[in-house]
Amino acid sequence: MMQDWLTQRAMRSPERIALIFGNESWTFRELDARVMETARQLGALGIEKNERVAVLMRNCDLYVALVHALARVGAVLVPINTRLTANEIEWQIENVGAQWLVHDDVNAERAGEVARGVVGLRVISSKREFSLRSSETFHRNASTVFDLDAPHAILFTSGTTGKPKGAVLTYGNHWWNAIGSALNLGLHEDDVWLACLPLFHIGGLAILLRGVIYGNAVVLHEAFDTDAVNRALDEQRVTIVSLVSTMLARVLDARGEKPFPPTLRSVLLGGGPAPKELLERCAKLNVPVMQTYGLTEAASQVATLAPQDALRKLGSPGKPLMGVELRIEGEGGNVGEIVIRGATVMREYAEDSEASAHAFRDGWFHTGDLGYMDEDGFLYVVSRRDDLIVSGGENVYPAEIEAVLNAHLAIQEAVVVGVADARWGQIPIAYVVLRAGQNASAEELKMYCGEKLARFKIPAQIFFVESLPRNVGGKLLRRALGGESGVNE
Amino acid sequence: MMQDWLTQRAMRSPERIALIFGNESWTFRELDARVMETARQLGALGIEKNERVAVLMRNCDLYVALVHALARVGAVLVPINTRLTANEIEWQIENVGAQWLVHDDVNAERAGEVARGVVGLRVISSKREFSLRSSETFHRNASTVFDLDAPHAILFTSGTTGKPKGAVLTYGNHWWNAIGSALNLGLHEDDVWLACLPLFHIGGLAILLRGVIYGNAVVLHEAFDTDAVNRALDEQRVTIVSLVSTMLARVLDARGEKPFPPTLRSVLLGGGPAPKELLERCAKLNVPVMQTYGLTEAASQVATLAPQDALRKLGSPGKPLMGVELRIEGEGGNVGEIVIRGATVMREYAEDSEASAHAFRDGWFHTGDLGYMDEDGFLYVVSRRDDLIVSGGENVYPAEIEAVLNAHLAIQEAVVVGVADARWGQIPIAYVVLRAGQNASAEELKMYCGEKLARFKIPAQIFFVESLPRNVGGKLLRRALGGESGVNE
Repeated sequence: MMQDWLTQRAMRSPERIALIFGNESWTFRELDARVMETARQLGALGIEKNERVAVLMRNCDLYVALVHALARVGAVLVPINTRLTANEIEWQIENVGAQWLVHDDVNAERAGEVARGVVGLRVISSKREFSLRSSETFHRNASTVFDLDAPHAILFTSGTTGKPKGAVLTYGNHWWNAIGSALNLGLHEDDVWLACLPLFHIGGLAILLRGVIYGNAVVLHEAFDTDAVNRALDEQRVTIVSLVSTMLARVLDARGEKPFPPTLRSVLLGGGPAPKELLERCAKLNVPVMQTYGLTEAASQVATLAPQDALRKLGSPGKPLMGVELRIEGEGGNVGEIVIRGATVMREYAEDSEASAHAFRDGWFHTGDLGYMDEDGFLYVVSRRDDLIVSGGENVYPAEIEAVLNAHLAIQEAVVVGVADARWGQIPIAYVVLRAGQNASAEELKMYCGEKLARFKIPAQIFFVESLPRNVGGKLLRRALGGESGVNE
Repeated sequence: MMQDWLTQRAMRSPERIALIFGNESWTFRELDARVMETARQLGALGIEKNERVAVLMRNCDLYVALVHALARVGAVLVPINTRLTANEIEWQIENVGAQWLVHDDVNAERAGEVARGVVGLRVISSKREFSLRSSETFHRNASTVFDLDAPHAILFTSGTTGKPKGAVLTYGNHWWNAIGSALNLGLHEDDVWLACLPLFHIGGLAILLRGVIYGNAVVLHEAFDTDAVNRALDEQRVTIVSLVSTMLARVLDARGEKPFPPTLRSVLLGGGPAPKELLERCAKLNVPVMQTYGLTEAASQVATLAPQDALRKLGSPGKPLMGVELRIEGEGGNVGEIVIRGATVMREYAEDSEASAHAFRDGWFHTGDLGYMDEDGFLYVVSRRDDLIVSGGENVYPAEIEAVLNAHLAIQEAVVVGVADARWGQIPIAYVVLRAGQNASAEELKMYCGEKLARFKIPAQIFFVESLPRNVGGKLLRRALGGESGVNE
């Protein structure tokens, strides 16, 4: 049991800045007052403890207030990916039995569609119900207490493969993740964490919660915008920013020769293995990149490279956070499934005992990701097991082939997936984005691969595309590529 | 459940410095190896899980190894104050049923005396049994797991009043205290914490445990030595030092005009309310003093002034750490008993259900200390309730009278205690240390007090003394003064 984090922060450091969004900012005292008011409004609407409340909104200050206010009334937050179709949202809402759906103006129409599909769902317009009133006048009647074992939120994993699963994250999962992160990255009084990832993904949500646990400022962006990120870095003394590889590449491109400000002490790079070339480019520019291996099911970071190892272990997300245990499981060899346990790991998938039982075996959560540890105990993530290509009895790891292709001068980005093949079971094929002004034929590239890779790893076909499909979190949608063919060879 | 902290640190940051003692230093990898070896030796001696092991030693590297090694075999550390008489030690050992006593050379004779008094006690010479061998060759066979609810150590409260009580501190108590402290003071990668307090007091022991939780270096001194402290500050990049008021005053005196190095970011000042004059002197010299209110029963810090409030709230130990709740209990008025609860608070006093029941009422630990909160929620500690003087039905708080006396130009230090009086029940008397070269008569000082204080608060007698009795932790031994009389008036 533990007092409400924001309450504690409003008590301990009331005048520190808690949130910056657009041209407005809130101190912890102000944010606390606003959250009190929002919680009162939630109560007036009839939202009760333990009810599940879906939120379909873009990042904004009200989203932040809602996150903390739902915790204050004891309701469970169910953030919904705003890119989903109404059908997909209906499925998630019904899956977790959410009784309420809060939406913003932009998502009003889709919320209406969803409401027509879900019996008994109560739909709330955030603008109408949560307009900010004179919040300063509200007084706390009782302090809220968080049960660290109670569910705080249900986040659906991105669902690039299979059907979405709702990871039930407790207050304790978030707390321990924030603590583990601080014990790795350190905790500076002047830290300002830039959140340009969506709050419906764990990478964004976790920044909010760390903010109130640490007592540090969060700069929130409505969405990822390269120029806005660069402006925030240059003008708002951002010390930590969470990004995925494609975002970071765009930020670097846009900056050109302009050095990063010395205030920036950590670029947390998540969303899957990063291209080595990008990491080397950052090293050259002295960008303090720390790769992280994160999972929704573990409340964000699982392993993160420590500052002192950032250059020495390029390409590794380092070692597990304090409090997280990580093992490589598998039959022989070094590469195996990454399994974890510890206080950051969720208890279960919501309403999906089958998926929960499959994920938890012998007390360890099976991530489905493949990796290995080097001789110093640093983790390297090789691939999602779901992406594994088995070709003629040989295991083929797309990441290995991609690394080779990405090192080719003409190639900006490449992805390898398996497609069914009558003879070999599966064969790898590649989708390639060429650099502007560069050219290369499929034959050239296959020959180039042949110089670096065993025969069975050479992509059977190479397709040239304009761009690769990614979800809003920047994660490559491999499934969207797998099995298709005939694009522009 | 959580992996052994030192194991985690040796895994996460093996090459960082963990400990500096004398001219030697150990990285986390080296300390881990040494602790492995010490744990093996403990096992070879027959020390088993859950056994209570008394340690009678001065601060040294072996003490550090023992602290971590006892945790690794699951034995409970019982640190013994080296200033105690053999009789007092016997009492403590019998009270907690310790089966083992580890001592260093200096304390060999007293350990022998103790052994003669305690049936079945096994006495171990640290030098003979734990000499360091080629520790690098030992391999971990299994990682140790800490149960956060299991007892880690039993520390006797200093016993300046009443009989000593053994506070049973769990792994969780230490962990949460370390986290709460970090969430207040921040966590810098280059932090170096100077430990010149004895390891048998919580203030010293907690530094060791924070070190392995944070992954930061600890500089350990055998005992408090003014010059050694100043050398460490100037030459070893110490960022945080824990001191009590008298120590800090001596450090300031010895430095003269020499400024403190910019690397020093926090002087944690514990051991009871600090003289305001000392705090003002520090403010003038830009010494980053942060007063702390600590208790053995809460694994050290309970409330600590945050860096941003250091000057604004001089004299206050600030607000409770994250995870600690603090209330003022009492009948009307502002001043009342300080009561606390939270994850840092011990579960019980060892083998003393009466004291435990008295301390824990309605789930709150009653500290016996008196204090109040100002309008911004900052704690001010007024006095130990045990020191409260009740005179003619009026409550007299020694701290109030002492503050007045301490403000007198001729007075270096003053203490006020109650003595029995036929007419009033109790009356306050004062012991005063004059500044070198200054003079004042008892009559003068009584008149001076009469200008500032209600009649019943004026000390009935004022005794001039050379110095005030303090325990090794720097805590004033009021009991040693109470009721005595006739010293040199």
